[in-house]
Amino acid sequence: FIYFITPTHFRAAQKADLTRLSYTLSHVPNLHWIVVEDSDELTPSVAEILKRSRLPYTHLNARTPSDQKMKYTDPNWTLPRGVEQRNSALLWIQNQLSAVRSGVVYFGDDDNTYDLRIFEEMRKVQKAGVWPVGIVGGMFVETPILAGNGSIIDFNSIWKRERPFPIDMAAFAVNVTLILSNPNALFSFDVPRGYQESTFLEKVGIHRYNMEPLAEKCSKVYVWHTRTEKSKLSKEMVQKLTKKTGFNPLEAHALGV
Amino acid sequence: FIYFITPTHFRAAQKADLTRLSYTLSHVPNLHWIVVEDSDELTPSVAEILKRSRLPYTHLNARTPSDQKMKYTDPNWTLPRGVEQRNSALLWIQNQLSAVRSGVVYFGDDDNTYDLRIFEEMRKVQKAGVWPVGIVGGMFVETPILAGNGSIIDFNSIWKRERPFPIDMAAFAVNVTLILSNPNALFSFDVPRGYQESTFLEKVGIHRYNMEPLAEKCSKVYVWHTRTEKSKLSKEMVQKLTKKTGFNPLEAHALGV
Ligand SMILES: O=c1ccn([C@@H]2O[C@H](COP(=O)(O)OP(=O)(O)O)[C@@H](O)[C@H]2O)c(=O)[nH]1
Ligand SMILES: O=c1ccn([C@@H]2O[C@H](COP(=O)(O)OP(=O)(O)O)[C@@H](O)[C@H]2O)c(=O)[nH]1
Ligand SMILES: [Mn+2]
Ligand SMILES: [Mn+2]
Repeated sequence: FIYFITPTHFRAAQKADLTRLSYTLSHVPNLHWIVVEDSDELTPSVAEILKRSRLPYTHLNARTPSDQKMKYTDPNWTLPRGVEQRNSALLWIQNQLSAVRSGVVYFGDDDNTYDLRIFEEMRKVQKAGVWPVGIVGGMFVETPILAGNGSIIDFNSIWKRERPFPIDMAAFAVNVTLILSNPNALFSFDVPRGYQESTFLEKVGIHRYNMEPLAEKCSKVYVWHTRTEKSKLSKEMVQKLTKKTGFNPLEAHALGV
Repeated sequence: FIYFITPTHFRAAQKADLTRLSYTLSHVPNLHWIVVEDSDELTPSVAEILKRSRLPYTHLNARTPSDQKMKYTDPNWTLPRGVEQRNSALLWIQNQLSAVRSGVVYFGDDDNTYDLRIFEEMRKVQKAGVWPVGIVGGMFVETPILAGNGSIIDFNSIWKRERPFPIDMAAFAVNVTLILSNPNALFSFDVPRGYQESTFLEKVGIHRYNMEPLAEKCSKVYVWHTRTEKSKLSKEMVQKLTKKTGFNPLEAHALGV
């Protein structure tokens, strides 16, 4: 099984993004979708998308503490995103799948784009697999660099190259057994910007050069860090969005309120 | 059959967007995907996506004249988009489907988001159907406004309300017979901004109040005008993109060059 962990929070395109993501994932056999809402309660519109997907799924919620929550106008990188939600999914796995002996865990954001071939690559993961990611980190592709013999010798990243793992969350998957045997491997608000991936991978006991390079020796791009544009909204609309209130019934349907 | 016409042009997320769109459309029975590239030649990467979709499809190309082509830094609304491509698809329909007696034609951009239920609505179209569209025109939803008896009495649009049809391209579908019986119903660069939809619908002989309101009396939103963010790129990267040259093999794979 692939355990596909998706943190998701309310924004104008949340319902649209989860809808199209569900149509990608529903093509994948043996995938369990763990969706963790950044909210106080499970949202019926998210529940409906999960149900309609016909996938095996788990629907959780875990709210980002308000002092860690970005404002609408903050640039997206000011604070880490998805920390509380991914941890909630990891704890669910530790509790519910403790007897499981095989499977792979992947962190798949709601607005990224996945080629179905990435899922076949994931199934090959022994401990931790890694592959190129399109349109991320200010580059067209971020990728491990391989030696002729196929081993990882470097990464092409530009931003904070000194990180233990200078890669994006979308670039790797780990065996579920590593999650079960390292219950302290969780994300944290207390790490420098860009160090979420590195901290997590260090805690599951992986070294950067021991990751398994996949996607035809990192020569193919099967996942893109797409982002859905925030449309220009009036002040009044921004207020409705941030307070999640004041929508007419049709607007509520469009946004999944 | 639904004839789903997608104009598409080279941009950083083109391959990603077409990939995820193909996973939506491949859930739809009896849909023929007409993809028209804004290019001098058919692109192998687009051909591969079409082939992998297992949908019935037609792959065309029609380049936007260079005096009508926007620059990378132009805001997206400076010039009409998709004119030449949609016309190419309409001409293909007139030539290849002249004997067809039923079916519906829809203009579906590569970066919008479609709920599968929109396709069931389309199949109900007699002449021209219309429905709400999410996140468009500076609003959360643009929609026809219905009277108690279910007839259209107005539209809620704010931008250029005076248009004969103040709606987005994603808001309507027309019967293929209207295309066949109105061969002059084509898009044009010579109409004021925002008048593409209106000019086309007038040419197929539809009146705004005679459109068939669908999606449960326009109470549901099954399509969103999402836009994929242009990521911040260096000058050098913008040049590679606009000239479509200078990519290394992995970048070329990421972008579908
Ligand atoms: O306050 C937040 C912000 C983001 N996210 C989720 O965390 C992931 C990454 O966020 P985003 O897509 O905004 O970040 P970026 O594209 O910049 O990596 C997405 O699945 C979001 O829905 C969240 O749960 N709470
Ligand atoms: O020069 C262009 C610009 C756009 N398009 C296509 O026309 C549609 C609408 O363009 P876009 O998504 O950029 O417009 P918007 O989202 O602003 O309506 C999309 O399918 C594009 O791929 C095109 O074929 N050539
Ligand atoms: Mn994102
Ligand atoms: Mn668009």
